[in-house]
Amino acid sequence: MSSPAPEASYTFLGPEGTFTEAALLQVPGADVARRVPAPTVNAALDLVRNGSVDAAMVPIENSVEGGVSATLDAISQGEPLRIIREVLVPITFVLVAKPEIRLNDVQTISTHGHAWAQCQLWITQNIPGAEYMPGSSTAAAAVGLLEKDCPYDAAICSPFVAERLGLPVLGSHIGDVADAVTRFILVSRPDVLPEPTGADKTTLVIPLPEDHPGALMEILDQFAARGVNLSRIESRPTGQFLGDYFFSIDAEGHIADARVADALKGLHRISPHLRFLGSYARADRREHSVARHTSDEAFRAARIWVESLQQND
Amino acid sequence: MSSPAPEASYTFLGPEGTFTEAALLQVPGADVARRVPAPTVNAALDLVRNGSVDAAMVPIENSVEGGVSATLDAISQGEPLRIIREVLVPITFVLVAKPEIRLNDVQTISTHGHAWAQCQLWITQNIPGAEYMPGSSTAAAAVGLLEKDCPYDAAICSPFVAERLGLPVLGSHIGDVADAVTRFILVSRPDVLPEPTGADKTTLVIPLPEDHPGALMEILDQFAARGVNLSRIESRPTGQFLGDYFFSIDAEGHIADARVADALKGLHRISPHLRFLGSYARADRREHSVARHTSDEAFRAARIWVESLQQND
Amino acid sequence: MSSPAPEASYTFLGPEGTFTEAALLQVPGADVARRVPAPTVNAALDLVRNGSVDAAMVPIENSVEGGVSATLDAISQGEPLRIIREVLVPITFVLVAKPEIRLNDVQTISTHGHAWAQCQLWITQNIPGAEYMPGSSTAAAAVGLLEKDCPYDAAICSPFVAERLGLPVLGSHIGDVADAVTRFILVSRPDVLPEPTGADKTTLVIPLPEDHPGALMEILDQFAARGVNLSRIESRPTGQFLGDYFFSIDAEGHIADARVADALKGLHRISPHLRFLGSYARADRREHSVARHTSDEAFRAARIWVESLQQND
Amino acid sequence: MSSPAPEASYTFLGPEGTFTEAALLQVPGADVARRVPAPTVNAALDLVRNGSVDAAMVPIENSVEGGVSATLDAISQGEPLRIIREVLVPITFVLVAKPEIRLNDVQTISTHGHAWAQCQLWITQNIPGAEYMPGSSTAAAAVGLLEKDCPYDAAICSPFVAERLGLPVLGSHIGDVADAVTRFILVSRPDVLPEPTGADKTTLVIPLPEDHPGALMEILDQFAARGVNLSRIESRPTGQFLGDYFFSIDAEGHIADARVADALKGLHRISPHLRFLGSYARADRREHSVARHTSDEAFRAARIWVESLQQND
Repeated sequence: MSSPAPEASYTFLGPEGTFTEAALLQVPGADVARRVPAPTVNAALDLVRNGSVDAAMVPIENSVEGGVSATLDAISQGEPLRIIREVLVPITFVLVAKPEIRLNDVQTISTHGHAWAQCQLWITQNIPGAEYMPGSSTAAAAVGLLEKDCPYDAAICSPFVAERLGLPVLGSHIGDVADAVTRFILVSRPDVLPEPTGADKTTLVIPLPEDHPGALMEILDQFAARGVNLSRIESRPTGQFLGDYFFSIDAEGHIADARVADALKGLHRISPHLRFLGSYARADRREHSVARHTSDEAFRAARIWVESLQQND
Repeated sequence: MSSPAPEASYTFLGPEGTFTEAALLQVPGADVARRVPAPTVNAALDLVRNGSVDAAMVPIENSVEGGVSATLDAISQGEPLRIIREVLVPITFVLVAKPEIRLNDVQTISTHGHAWAQCQLWITQNIPGAEYMPGSSTAAAAVGLLEKDCPYDAAICSPFVAERLGLPVLGSHIGDVADAVTRFILVSRPDVLPEPTGADKTTLVIPLPEDHPGALMEILDQFAARGVNLSRIESRPTGQFLGDYFFSIDAEGHIADARVADALKGLHRISPHLRFLGSYARADRREHSVARHTSDEAFRAARIWVESLQQND
Repeated sequence: MSSPAPEASYTFLGPEGTFTEAALLQVPGADVARRVPAPTVNAALDLVRNGSVDAAMVPIENSVEGGVSATLDAISQGEPLRIIREVLVPITFVLVAKPEIRLNDVQTISTHGHAWAQCQLWITQNIPGAEYMPGSSTAAAAVGLLEKDCPYDAAICSPFVAERLGLPVLGSHIGDVADAVTRFILVSRPDVLPEPTGADKTTLVIPLPEDHPGALMEILDQFAARGVNLSRIESRPTGQFLGDYFFSIDAEGHIADARVADALKGLHRISPHLRFLGSYARADRREHSVARHTSDEAFRAARIWVESLQQND
Repeated sequence: MSSPAPEASYTFLGPEGTFTEAALLQVPGADVARRVPAPTVNAALDLVRNGSVDAAMVPIENSVEGGVSATLDAISQGEPLRIIREVLVPITFVLVAKPEIRLNDVQTISTHGHAWAQCQLWITQNIPGAEYMPGSSTAAAAVGLLEKDCPYDAAICSPFVAERLGLPVLGSHIGDVADAVTRFILVSRPDVLPEPTGADKTTLVIPLPEDHPGALMEILDQFAARGVNLSRIESRPTGQFLGDYFFSIDAEGHIADARVADALKGLHRISPHLRFLGSYARADRREHSVARHTSDEAFRAARIWVESLQQND
């Protein structure tokens, strides 16, 4: 089936005005749907699990900081969830300030820790003495400037929020990396499977069956033997004790593709507790070439050949 | 279905009295069936292909000489055939002679070239000066001794033939290797598939899809990824030009086993012109352990899991 | 050579009183050495790079949250650094409050975002209505309680800090995971290589040479072919654009071990820009068995054999 | 060092006039050297082992029949030998007869069994009723025609012998395969190692270390991990009992090539009793491309890099 209908309801890692809400607004119909901000990723996912909303938009990775651990772990455990969409949002930061403040006056800046980390070059060059005051989000830091007795002078946030709040912008494009992008995922209950589009991604959580040299190879071989490329892999501690871990993996292709389905069968045999977190369209729409011998047609021909041999008598 | 019925007809690499006939006589019912000796392996296989007989017994390997090239190639090409049984015959050689000849008198010995090669130690020690005269088979060499004007004094043959012909035995167990064994196969038309027995073998002919480092690895990986062991492998020139070759392989297990069937599917994708030469009981009855994750049950569970995910909507 | 001498100077991710300082104090001699708190991981590493201190203690992973992305990236880029020691610190959280506050009175809690995430179960059960106020560290949140006009009532921090500051403890062992552990690394300039201890770890940064199915396999095969186990792997975006990535890997063993050195040689051939971040003692002291054919002796015997063949003439 | 000097002495699988002598005559200087025919491959190799001659020319493979088992086994066991040259000889057969015999008169034909097998198409079409009489070699069969009381009418041999003996040729190019080629090897004592030429081959005998799925993969992985292609592989029974076997392998490249030497080191670790049978120029002079990351330079750079890291202190 397809994505949730326009009348669907959503939650997102709030507050309003964050990059996460910007990601949600890219989902068709989300602009007119009910949108509930949630204080944490876990809180957002719980709203999905208990049926309060249809889906949650949460951050999963950014091109500067790598995977967002809390989200990865939250969807890997507990009641099953399903990733149904991936959204990329370009990360552009601006420095906004209280109305009366000029760049030279800025002494204290608030923003989310990740945003602060990503603007260090500009800060060091332009306001080297500025002090950092942690904020729970970029949007919250910007909103704070409107409050009386705000303990800081300026905030780093998205242009989107700066415009919405009408705050003066003291610096634009202040991020260290010109083309930084954040990746978000839309998460629903596990009764949804998006149609294949030809440029899809499949996310899996695979417990390591045994800890010996080559155990990881055996897992990866299940992909390689079917010509399935990986676009992300992370070993993750299980939370029980160091050394006991699982793999969080993004593979190219859709479970409706024969080569992906066949790889999943092989993985199930060697790690029966693996978790399928969804097949969904790649946000970058990049198609991957499929070798002739890993095409659906090659799998179909192989199956027919073996079955004809088995039914020989 | 099972092996040919008792009223079946057979051919074998003749003449009568060779180890090959001894192998055929191990097949239940063959002792009372029609048995036609053939002059060459190709002639025997042609009798099967054109329907003159039901099956042919031909030598495929011995523990001293390795694969019998002509047989391997003959069943790999032309009209498809099917191996339905494997037979092991212990190789014991005796030296027989014309009635009046004693060991010290022996000057010329005839036998098949392979037999001659396998008795060199005994010959060198006991009749070092003896000359070799090629024979087309061990049995033919023994039979020749009964003819008038036989140009040689002695022959190396099986005890079976010596006894049948009533020839005096000048030496027993004269082979270099105490426990030498020859392997024979029973070959039928491709409409027969023996039932799995739990200790089976599957024979394949696999053209090398491309000639690059790792191409052979890709083929073997299809076995290893399913826990299928190989008991024989040979690269063979295709007969067209050196460097272009195929693989002749024996794998443990039956095509009715899920892990073997799955390996065959993978092989078909990367080398679509491979040939299935049969699944049949191992002559040595040696069972092989199957890891839990390559059992039929593991394959079934994996398939059900993936299908349930695919039919999600 | 060995670890820095007692008169060495250190920096650590501050402020004083964090788990990171606790980790540093486990280093022999660090208690009497100069210790400089740094505001960020990058700032700490810069103090090492520019020679201001000998080494920096920074967090690298915890058993609940996984890898600490900022640290991984910071040591993977820029002027080379070297990991020379790994330290584990059990994570135990306490809830401390202003003197007059009792548990029922707590309305706002400050702490670091990771700590807040790890105490959700206890908070939900005991003070479900409590609001979160981000803090830059657990120690900073605790120190804040001593200030006049502190905007929050309570803080989550380590027992170590609570005791040092003399703050009343309203709850102990409030973390979700009983045995949570954080892993820290001591980082120096690249002129230090700790002696092998028999229970070592080697950290590498390996750019993916090409993006095709099997490219990751080729990298991992270099470890598997020498019997070298991995204890951590993460693919990481390079920061340029999504899809272009490198691997951050911990392997078992020391570069002084022949099997590790041989794997490094293989890796250098297929990804010449890989970075060696150090070989150092495992904090958990867990020894790993080494198969006979991957022992130093096996490597030595193999080298001697091949050299004797090469010098044949 | 280079090949034996012109004053060297040789043996070959006789008698004179066989394709094997033709192969030997391709060795520079062999035409004026002492040439001793030997009755069997083992006899020829023994003449080398005991120092009677410098080297032996023996058949190893033909493009129709595959490997010549006896030769493969003979050089794999016993006192070590060394392959120092490979020679290809086109196989062209002619039918020769006694002076008075015409094609229609031919009733009995003698030749070596392999030659007989390779001329079946022509025989069947031109003298379908002809009977076969085994000969110990093609040359011996031809020579026999000159004797009084020769029991057969015709022989199949090489054009070379037909011309030397002045026998009438009843049919030319009578082999089934137009471009059939036989491969011969020149075998010396193990104190010779030919210089690399850029188009070389290395022959190895590798006992299977353990019999489990993947054991063969581990062996082949040592080649693949260094980009070394194989041009031949055969599993061979050890001669003790069926199921216990070794691999006879030809790999592309010379032991002086870093990638081949490195593969040999890896093989020595997992199968310490492997045997190096020589590195020598390919008869077909076909060069193989070497990937940048498996070049001698890549191996040298990798070694230097690791050594610089190890000598860090």
